[in-house]
Amino acid sequence: MNTIKVGLLGLGTVGTGVVRIVEGHHEDLQSQVGSPITIHKILVKDLDKMRNVPVDRSKLTDDPWDIVRDPEIDVIVEVMGGIAGTKEVIWEALERGKHIVTANKDLMALHGPELLAKAHEKGCDILYEASVAGGIPIIRTLIEGFSSDRITKIMGIVNGTTNYILTKMSQEGAAYQEVLKEAQALGYAEADPTSDVEGLDAARKMTILATLGFRATVALEDVDVKGISSVSQEDIWYAKSLGYAVKLLGIAERQDDYISVSVQPTFVKVTHPIASVNGVFNAVYVHGEAVGETMFYGPGAGEMPTATSVVADLVAVIKNMKLGVNGRQANVSYKEKKLKTDRQITSKYFMNLHVDDRAGVLMQIAQVFSELGVSIESVMQPPTPNSRDAELIVTTHKTSKEAMNNVLNAFDSLSAVQKIKSVYRVEG
Amino acid sequence: MNTIKVGLLGLGTVGTGVVRIVEGHHEDLQSQVGSPITIHKILVKDLDKMRNVPVDRSKLTDDPWDIVRDPEIDVIVEVMGGIAGTKEVIWEALERGKHIVTANKDLMALHGPELLAKAHEKGCDILYEASVAGGIPIIRTLIEGFSSDRITKIMGIVNGTTNYILTKMSQEGAAYQEVLKEAQALGYAEADPTSDVEGLDAARKMTILATLGFRATVALEDVDVKGISSVSQEDIWYAKSLGYAVKLLGIAERQDDYISVSVQPTFVKVTHPIASVNGVFNAVYVHGEAVGETMFYGPGAGEMPTATSVVADLVAVIKNMKLGVNGRQANVSYKEKKLKTDRQITSKYFMNLHVDDRAGVLMQIAQVFSELGVSIESVMQPPTPNSRDAELIVTTHKTSKEAMNNVLNAFDSLSAVQKIKSVYRVEG
Repeated sequence: MNTIKVGLLGLGTVGTGVVRIVEGHHEDLQSQVGSPITIHKILVKDLDKMRNVPVDRSKLTDDPWDIVRDPEIDVIVEVMGGIAGTKEVIWEALERGKHIVTANKDLMALHGPELLAKAHEKGCDILYEASVAGGIPIIRTLIEGFSSDRITKIMGIVNGTTNYILTKMSQEGAAYQEVLKEAQALGYAEADPTSDVEGLDAARKMTILATLGFRATVALEDVDVKGISSVSQEDIWYAKSLGYAVKLLGIAERQDDYISVSVQPTFVKVTHPIASVNGVFNAVYVHGEAVGETMFYGPGAGEMPTATSVVADLVAVIKNMKLGVNGRQANVSYKEKKLKTDRQITSKYFMNLHVDDRAGVLMQIAQVFSELGVSIESVMQPPTPNSRDAELIVTTHKTSKEAMNNVLNAFDSLSAVQKIKSVYRVEG
Repeated sequence: MNTIKVGLLGLGTVGTGVVRIVEGHHEDLQSQVGSPITIHKILVKDLDKMRNVPVDRSKLTDDPWDIVRDPEIDVIVEVMGGIAGTKEVIWEALERGKHIVTANKDLMALHGPELLAKAHEKGCDILYEASVAGGIPIIRTLIEGFSSDRITKIMGIVNGTTNYILTKMSQEGAAYQEVLKEAQALGYAEADPTSDVEGLDAARKMTILATLGFRATVALEDVDVKGISSVSQEDIWYAKSLGYAVKLLGIAERQDDYISVSVQPTFVKVTHPIASVNGVFNAVYVHGEAVGETMFYGPGAGEMPTATSVVADLVAVIKNMKLGVNGRQANVSYKEKKLKTDRQITSKYFMNLHVDDRAGVLMQIAQVFSELGVSIESVMQPPTPNSRDAELIVTTHKTSKEAMNNVLNAFDSLSAVQKIKSVYRVEG
């Protein structure tokens, strides 16, 4: 077969890595797919910008349609990100029978199902391994490795920025704002960190993982999201003293075909394998009915790790081209989506309450828990310097989210409770 | 398409799990492959034995040829183990155009290349995900997930029995023989534990992983093997006090296309992710030039985890049947195998020497290291009750295996050295 011609949309961090791997490993790649692979055209914003990798000036274009409409191009590698504009470009590429490899989690979380349907209709592949946990091949693991199993739980540290911040806060005792600034200076966090720190990025990735794991189309709005901006040093201190690490966890669960997906800062038992995933690393923990506990660990972002996944997808697309089997990606979403109600979502909780420091208060608190059917696992009232208020640290046994919300509402109208300082889900 | 008919060779632990999954998940499996899957015939040793899973008596046979020669059977699932006899059966099945799914590490480590070549010739698949690290989809990860990368190092805890024994020795301070007996009583170790405890089982698995990771056919005799039977409580105590865990690690390394593969008890820095893999769990750490550090963790054996991998392979074979692309497994071994010499194999070492407790001995020891070009990282001489001999705990900087062997030979002929009590490779 002739040379496989690739159109590359984007020459930022990941795009640069893709060029490096396709050129640096060209012999290995050719041995695997049986044809030379060449990057034929590259979409850039600024034709004259200095590049971190040598590229032939004549391959550059600032017009995406120049690439999409090039009949010589077989595969489009999309690493420019964004949704508006990008979706139209990908759509048109599929219309023209081009295969797609993308690292775009936003695109796949929001428009994955329609793009996959379109690809199927046109006999095209659309692969997106790099869209979640950059260097970890978790998507093919969920689709192929666990095809025979029923996955019951996926927990992911899928956002490196927040894991970096929480790790630093925990290891160095620094405050959230301080660590965020440091992360921004190091390039681990963006100038506008909202999407990372408020959990939106993680929610998009969990949408993709839950869809694959549970074989039902989960939408972004199905994900209950809370970020890390309210995590305090005090919370981390209490977590540590109780034997937990604080992690921003995406949690997707299934029971009797009812599912729930959430992202929130979570107290994770230090003995759980995901508790020791630190810094910018990502990890995805998968529990299957048959396989039991597994975990996949690696870099979540970065030029070369993400490019590794992108080019692995490119290899898969080209192998499919050779076999003439593109566009046969199984539709994994053959199950109807049924979301759990708050009554069906269960977990353990940690709670830090500021209460009046007087006789009878503990009894009132205990009564609320008892009446609303929430069983307490432990209570701790540390000595406080201020004699007028006390801190009450409560952990619960497994309870429903509904019952927990009822407890929180009851505390809101209980005068002895000055403030609900923090509430965390507890895992492991 | 009609029902896919499977011939199952073996109804032990894994075979029972395969029956459970194929029957229990039949709807899910049918949704994925588009046809019902049925287990048509089952090879057993004893037709009248009580079974842990209900099977139709009429499906049982004690003659493997009855299955292999059945023209209705599309896929053979081999979970009986062994090499003699098994290879002939698999060979004949391939001759007759049947696809193979096997969990047999011995078969694949010893005869993988010829079986894969035969399968290719006959247009058949032979998949073997379950042969290494039962529940961890590491084989497809190495073939597909990292197809674009150059893997430089694979470290595996791939034998659950020895990891269980070392974990118990470390956590409970029990002696090797004692823990081995306990493991045998629990069914974690076999009556004849040689293959596990002497590292042979791990070596077979590392042969398979190294072949896939380095794209060159590694043979069992290329693996340098040492087991755990000489690991003492003292070694574990010193490891702990220096910040290491003792693990039976398979280590496959590549540098400039020269490779080495070994299995040995190793001191692993506790901060390394593989150091905290405990009990019967397995983990495979993979370092790639582009991706950096990744690790895959899960159950290494057991009925359901291993059966998950077997049935995932079965799903893959059937999908290939539907697409008409069986037998197109890429030959991953397209590189010439070049083994490192002892001069090229480098690592850090730990050493426990019993030496005479008199003036000048430390100088003599230091001189040997110095003359043979091995740089010392740390020396410790703990106080000993017996005044006539001293213990010398040495860790080295990275050095070649050749230089280390020279040092050991020199100590053999140095009268001040009473005994080389232990030597360990150090990682992380």
